[in-house]
Amino acid sequence: MSLDHSVGIVAPQRFCHDAPMALKGGGRLPSFELVFETYGTLNAARSNAVLVCHALAGSHHVAGFYADTPNSEGWWDNLVGPGKPLDTRRFFVVGVNNLGGCNGSTGPLSPNPETGRRYGADFPLVTVEDWVLAQSRLADHLGIDTWAAVIGGSLGGMQAIAWSLQFPERVRHVIAIASAPNLSAQNIAFNEVARQAILSDPDFFGGHYANRGIVPTRGLRLARMIGHITYLSDDQMNEKFGRQLRHGKASFSYDIDFEIESYLRHQGDKFAGLFDANTYLLVTKALDYFDPAQACGGDLAAALSPARASFLVVSFTTDWRFSPARSREIVFALMRRRRRVAYAEIDCDAGHDSFLLDDAHYHAVLRAYLENIEL
Amino acid sequence: MSLDHSVGIVAPQRFCHDAPMALKGGGRLPSFELVFETYGTLNAARSNAVLVCHALAGSHHVAGFYADTPNSEGWWDNLVGPGKPLDTRRFFVVGVNNLGGCNGSTGPLSPNPETGRRYGADFPLVTVEDWVLAQSRLADHLGIDTWAAVIGGSLGGMQAIAWSLQFPERVRHVIAIASAPNLSAQNIAFNEVARQAILSDPDFFGGHYANRGIVPTRGLRLARMIGHITYLSDDQMNEKFGRQLRHGKASFSYDIDFEIESYLRHQGDKFAGLFDANTYLLVTKALDYFDPAQACGGDLAAALSPARASFLVVSFTTDWRFSPARSREIVFALMRRRRRVAYAEIDCDAGHDSFLLDDAHYHAVLRAYLENIEL
Repeated sequence: MSLDHSVGIVAPQRFCHDAPMALKGGGRLPSFELVFETYGTLNAARSNAVLVCHALAGSHHVAGFYADTPNSEGWWDNLVGPGKPLDTRRFFVVGVNNLGGCNGSTGPLSPNPETGRRYGADFPLVTVEDWVLAQSRLADHLGIDTWAAVIGGSLGGMQAIAWSLQFPERVRHVIAIASAPNLSAQNIAFNEVARQAILSDPDFFGGHYANRGIVPTRGLRLARMIGHITYLSDDQMNEKFGRQLRHGKASFSYDIDFEIESYLRHQGDKFAGLFDANTYLLVTKALDYFDPAQACGGDLAAALSPARASFLVVSFTTDWRFSPARSREIVFALMRRRRRVAYAEIDCDAGHDSFLLDDAHYHAVLRAYLENIEL
Repeated sequence: MSLDHSVGIVAPQRFCHDAPMALKGGGRLPSFELVFETYGTLNAARSNAVLVCHALAGSHHVAGFYADTPNSEGWWDNLVGPGKPLDTRRFFVVGVNNLGGCNGSTGPLSPNPETGRRYGADFPLVTVEDWVLAQSRLADHLGIDTWAAVIGGSLGGMQAIAWSLQFPERVRHVIAIASAPNLSAQNIAFNEVARQAILSDPDFFGGHYANRGIVPTRGLRLARMIGHITYLSDDQMNEKFGRQLRHGKASFSYDIDFEIESYLRHQGDKFAGLFDANTYLLVTKALDYFDPAQACGGDLAAALSPARASFLVVSFTTDWRFSPARSREIVFALMRRRRRVAYAEIDCDAGHDSFLLDDAHYHAVLRAYLENIEL
């Protein structure tokens, strides 16, 4: 871990929202808490705040590290810090764990005030729009009237777009990376298989496993393995793992033969020990449901007309989960509405996960765009 | 069901091989049976026999239907019959259920002669080469010294290729459709997740579920759902299912929302009621292990040098499981060895499953090629 350009030791903070919030799906939370982190300093004009929205497995811990916790670097530490593309000498950066998450914000693992027991499956389904609404309450709390930028990759990019539609006057720049205007049927299909893996795990107990002290490990593990296939490109998998046999020859058993099997099992096991199954389920539904164009009969340009922000859209050539074509749909729709939009299609072999890497071209694009944001 | 051009009512036959067979993986079967069907008539010169090799979920029941069984058409009935591209007025066509299968040939559901109980997980892993060897014993039994052609799609195409290498003098034409010279890391990854779904199902009981009268339904269902995503193209899924909501609006639950979810669950449920989990596992391993170039240090052209057959290689533009690029690898390797090879890349939107459809261009290619085979 390099301390150069690191925001250094960080600590999460809590925001308690002590009033009810109505959710898009008809549910209602009597109150909620969000855990968040900040890096850099809010300027006097309160004009330099940037919100980082996380994707499926991300959290509020975007940058820096925790004291006395080894390997605790934030998930976007390569992007956020002094001198980095999202420069904390200039910007006040906020990371927040979304509602329904399992990293400290109110979610299925939290106590349900009505029963005193964990919500589990009784936690209501939340949407991208609900996340943005909850984030807006955090912005109020922090005294941030307008974000200089809202930035995110994948599902995080969807939140950034949703910000520009729900609160057009509260966001000046939207940076949507490796994102899409909605999920394709194939995207939904992968999510559905992951959900079925969890829902059909006998240890799921209808979503009330946590009150029994049990984790549906098998389902979570499979869900993550499926996800990982879609995060990497075919080419990258071939380069990284190819057909390399772990022990030089075929085992003629169901033990690990190929390196890719070892990688997937490891990723699945690691995730199953960290993540909450109900959160996984609800986040995949939030993804499935996100579709701003739906209310406009599928006309994305019409759906984006409330937006007042300037946009930077970034895609990666080998991303087959949210392909460049999906990003271009956003770009063309914005152009049709004569909105300011910059677009970069980055030649990177790492598939969907490219948005987490520090590819030089990609980071140069982000740096240039962010440097040009007036404060 | 149209009776025009149908081979009509058919009945499976059995071939009993009462001698031991050594397997590539080191295992040994004391004896085995293969269930097969034939259509058309073997000519006096025994020169018109065509072997149809099946893919993962196929069987010996290639064409025709069973008396008194509704909807029992063979899986390639659109291709095989009088007047069809594989014309049974001209060819004697043989379909066979592979060793380790669950449609009647000796496999994990068969009694282990050493214990009297079902083999289950004690059935040895078999390879593509083992299947070809077993098929050659059936050919001996039928008095077929040389196949006019061996034809197959996907894994069936791999068997056709393997025939040309193991028994170069016994096959005059190889027709490999939607196939590949080996699996990519991504292909293996999908197989591995499907296997893990089955292996981690508590009803799997280490592969000895059948002796308990139990089926690992959950695992099989997930395995088939994952498979189905890879059989269809992204475009076709969008056209067929899109983001269409089954009940017009979001349920905000984990019930079926999108049509694609309904389709996948249906396919999974249907398959789990029909197929054997141990067979599924061993077939995916046979796929993973198939790699004729491995013994030649990855040089596919060198690996194909024993082949004496003429080849027709067919791929489909939207097949992302075994893409046209993988078929072209076979074609280029054959060309480097100056083998006779014809190649057709069919523009069909149905992805990998295109090989099962009666696309006009595709069938015209097969018809033309087959008509030109001298008997």
